[in-house]
Parts: sequence; structure tokens; C-alpha cells
Amino acid sequence: MKLAVIGLGLIGGSMAKDLRRTRFATEIIGSDTNSENARIALGMGIADRIESLDNAVKEADIVIVAIPVDKIVSLLPYILDHISPSATVLDVGSTKREIAAAVKDHPLRGNFVATHPMSGTENSGPIAAIEHLFESKICIVCDHEKCRPQHLALAEKMYQSLGMPIAYMSSDEQDHTTAFISHLPHATSFALANAVLAIEDRNIIFDLASGGFQSTVRLAKSSPQMWSPIFWQNRDYIAEALEVYIRHLEEFKESLKNNDHDRLTELIVNANKIRGVLEGENSSLTKNEETIIKFYTK
Amino acid sequence: MKLAVIGLGLIGGSMAKDLRRTRFATEIIGSDTNSENARIALGMGIADRIESLDNAVKEADIVIVAIPVDKIVSLLPYILDHISPSATVLDVGSTKREIAAAVKDHPLRGNFVATHPMSGTENSGPIAAIEHLFESKICIVCDHEKCRPQHLALAEKMYQSLGMPIAYMSSDEQDHTTAFISHLPHATSFALANAVLAIEDRNIIFDLASGGFQSTVRLAKSSPQMWSPIFWQNRDYIAEALEVYIRHLEEFKESLKNNDHDRLTELIVNANKIRGVLEGENSSLTKNEETIIKFYTK
Repeated sequence: MKLAVIGLGLIGGSMAKDLRRTRFATEIIGSDTNSENARIALGMGIADRIESLDNAVKEADIVIVAIPVDKIVSLLPYILDHISPSATVLDVGSTKREIAAAVKDHPLRGNFVATHPMSGTENSGPIAAIEHLFESKICIVCDHEKCRPQHLALAEKMYQSLGMPIAYMSSDEQDHTTAFISHLPHATSFALANAVLAIEDRNIIFDLASGGFQSTVRLAKSSPQMWSPIFWQNRDYIAEALEVYIRHLEEFKESLKNNDHDRLTELIVNANKIRGVLEGENSSLTKNEETIIKFYTK
Repeated sequence: MKLAVIGLGLIGGSMAKDLRRTRFATEIIGSDTNSENARIALGMGIADRIESLDNAVKEADIVIVAIPVDKIVSLLPYILDHISPSATVLDVGSTKREIAAAVKDHPLRGNFVATHPMSGTENSGPIAAIEHLFESKICIVCDHEKCRPQHLALAEKMYQSLGMPIAYMSSDEQDHTTAFISHLPHATSFALANAVLAIEDRNIIFDLASGGFQSTVRLAKSSPQMWSPIFWQNRDYIAEALEVYIRHLEEFKESLKNNDHDRLTELIVNANKIRGVLEGENSSLTKNEETIIKFYTK
């Protein structure tokens, strides 16, 4: 299977590494508008060769579009214009409504599979690419009824080879869900960094930074090139998520200001439920076969 | 050196493990009001034997008080009443003003060293105790001018054996600083858990939880027995930190609602500065010997 990976950063680079390791890809053609990143990716063996976008796209059996979501919107129609008619194209962006809208009337819409493999780190560029980044994480596939069956099946097979269970939903559902589960945690970290950076003595504060602070603020290191367009495209749902979140913070603040110790303790006890939920006690993957989640084993 | 560890949970248990490993402690007497925890700690070899509070305290060269901060306030005067006159007592609580007030007129105030070793995990109880939890983390020592020199020196030596640099500050400074750098991240995680738990379909949401969500929400698993009293004792400064934080979140929300893409990007770019700061580019530990931070090497 000949792959073109458009965008050789953290996500594109990590996918290329694993798809080569699992032998899903027999050849990987890389393309990146940043020639330094292209050179690094070639040197790291992420890509077998580097081509222009046009050349990479026209040769490939599968084109993986792993660039910031604003660039996906502007480039995806062009990519569909230039693929072989039998090729499968998939994007890996964190938002989906604008991307879906950009290709909804394209004659090769059926060749495109909108996907969101839900994994990443706070780092970026090809040097951040790591193996096993996606293993056992969920991949969201959006609007799968718009895909021609052979292209959907090939995308599913690819994510199966990465060890990812697949969840199917509409672009709108994915943007709403992801606003809470992924974009909101980024916003909370960005704001925590800004709040702590704004106060008094930076040197002393950061000498004191404990593991708790470091993990809570980790996502604040994430790249603006990637995250500013995500926030922008999903701004209505992220603003909604922020409103809900701020209400919950206000509840903490009010319990402190009103000297309501019982309420404070209740809020902490309720938050603790996240442990059981994250450990899978409500997981539809393990408990409910009638769910929209479809689980693949490798 | 004969140690009494009062409270055999995550912090007391982890300190005992390391102080035995480094041979700072030759004997460790444990005491815990929870007899099941005491039994587990004994079985794990955290303590050599279990005694009542009175017996543990009267024999020890050093008494480490590792119980929730409300219990420290109520028990510390009693402990000082029952120690040998040459013994050193230290607490490891995350707040300090109320604890300082509770012993300010005690005749053995000079035997007490108020300390806050800044490390932990979201888990609790003796089974959560781990080695090397404190290594290279900061320990705050408060109001050191209130300590008799030999007791301060012994506490410093103990933290040196754990590999911890020491920062000296007043109880008030520590409570303010810690409100931002430790208690606020806990509040942001508790509120994030509550916000996400409050919305729609818990099963689907949590199947989608990525590494980013998991690290941002990790602290929300923390024990209410430990954290509710911390929030309570430090409620004025934590409410202040929450107000600052909510203002920064509102800035994000406003940039989205006002379609101000440039401002949104600025906020993310500013948050990214946390990376350099956490990697030590402003660290007073490495750059400024005239700081209040005193660095020990093992």
C-alpha cells in the first residue's frame, strides 16, 4: 500500500512510523510546505522520499492529510482534484464541520473519509513523532454514510492496524463531543498557564511547580499553529463548554466565599467519580455491544 | 535516628520508605487512627511497629505529622505536649497559617518545624506510598525563625536525605504561593471533572477520553479527606486564585464570542511561555544564588 503523508509533524509522522512498522504501508511519500521538517522526516526514515503535494497525491493509494485544520479546509478540495480515482483520502483533524462543508459537493466526496484519531502530545514537528501513539486510543470516523464503501473499509483497516477502536458519529456530534473532552482541557490549561504567568514572582513560583501543576498545565505547551485554527473552527461549541466549565468553577468559589464546607466537600466527592468512569466502569467498549462504538482488536 | 510517622498514607508512607532506604531512619514507629491502614503499612514494611499516638510520640527523635491539615491543627499541640524535650516535630501539610496559629504560644514551639514537601499523587493510603516521590522536588520550610536551630538543622538534614531543595518563606507567603501553584490546579481539575460528568452521555464521552483529558483531570481523583480541609484552611487565597483564573478563561471565551482570531492566537502564544519557564529558563535554583531558595545536593 503506497501512502502519501501530507504534513510530517507529530501526527502525520507518528502515523507513518506505525504504519510502516505494522507493514500496512509498503512505501511512504512525504510532503510538507516546511522544507526543514521534510528534510528531518526524511532523515528519520519517516518518509521514503519527499515530493511536492501534486506528485505525492497523484501516486498514492491512500493520502493522509495531517496539517492544521484551517489548511485542511483550504487544501482538501485541491487534493481530491488531483488523486487517482481509486485513491482513498483521509484527514486527521480535530474538527469536522468546516472540513465536511468544504468537500460536500466534490465529485470525489465518496473517496474521502473524515477521521479524528484521538491522541497526541504537547510537542510538534517530525522530531516529536513517536511509535505507539495511537494504540488503544479511539478514532472517530465522521459522516461515514458519505463514503464509498471501499474507501471506508480501507480507512477502517488502516486504523485497525494502528490498534484503534472506531467510534462513528456525525461531524456535528464529533465537534460537540470533542469540544468538551479535548478542546476544553486545552483551554483550561492555556488559561491556567496565563493566570500563573500573570502573577508576581515567576522565578519562585516555577521553582515550586510540583507534578500536579506540571500535568495540569502540560497541554498549555501545545502549538498555536495547530490549536488556534481548532479553537476557531469549533468556537461555538468551545464557548459553550467554557460556559459550563466556568459555572462549575464558580460553584467552588462560592462554596469557599460562603463558608459552605459541606458543599465544598460534595463538589470534591462528585469530581472523584471521574476515577471510576476513566477506569472503565461505564465503558461502552466493554459492556455494551449495541453501542455506536465498534471495537477492533489487532 | 528513631522516627515516629503519624499518618501512614501516601505522604507519610512514601517518606518512611525513603528515609529507611537512605538510612536516615534506623527505626520507624507508625501510628494511624485507621487500624486497617496501620496493618497494611506494617505488612509493607513501612513501619517496624505500630503504636498508639502517645507511645509513638514519646519515644521518637523525630515526629513526622502526615495527616490531613484539619487534624494537624487539632493534634499538633497535643503532640508537642507529649514529646521528649529534645525531639523534633514536623508536619507535612499543604497549608500553614492555621497550623502556625495553633502552636504559636506552645512552650515547645521551637521544637516544631513547619514543612511542605511539594510532591504527591492522586492516590491515597499506604498502598499508594512509593519510593523517590520527593526527589528533586521543593520542600517549603515556613517561619524558620520560630524554630530552635538544632531542630531546624535536623529537619533540613532529613529533607536533604530525601534529595529535596528547600525554600524558606512565611506561612502567609506559602499559603498564597501554594494557592496558585498547587491548590488552583486541583480546583481546575475538580471543576473539569464535574463539568464533563454533568453533560449528556457519560459512556460515549469517556470512551473518547484521550491522554490530554486524562492528564488534565488526573488531580480530580484526589482524596476529599485530604483536600477538603486544605481548600477550607486556604479558602481566601484559593478564592482569589480562582477569580484570577476565571478572568483568564473569560478572555478565551470572549475572543471566541467576539470572533477575535488574533486575540485567541495571542492567548495561546502567551500560554506557551510556560514551556520555557518549566524547563528552567527563569529558574532561581540554577541562575541566582542570592535567592531565598537554598539548594542541597545529596
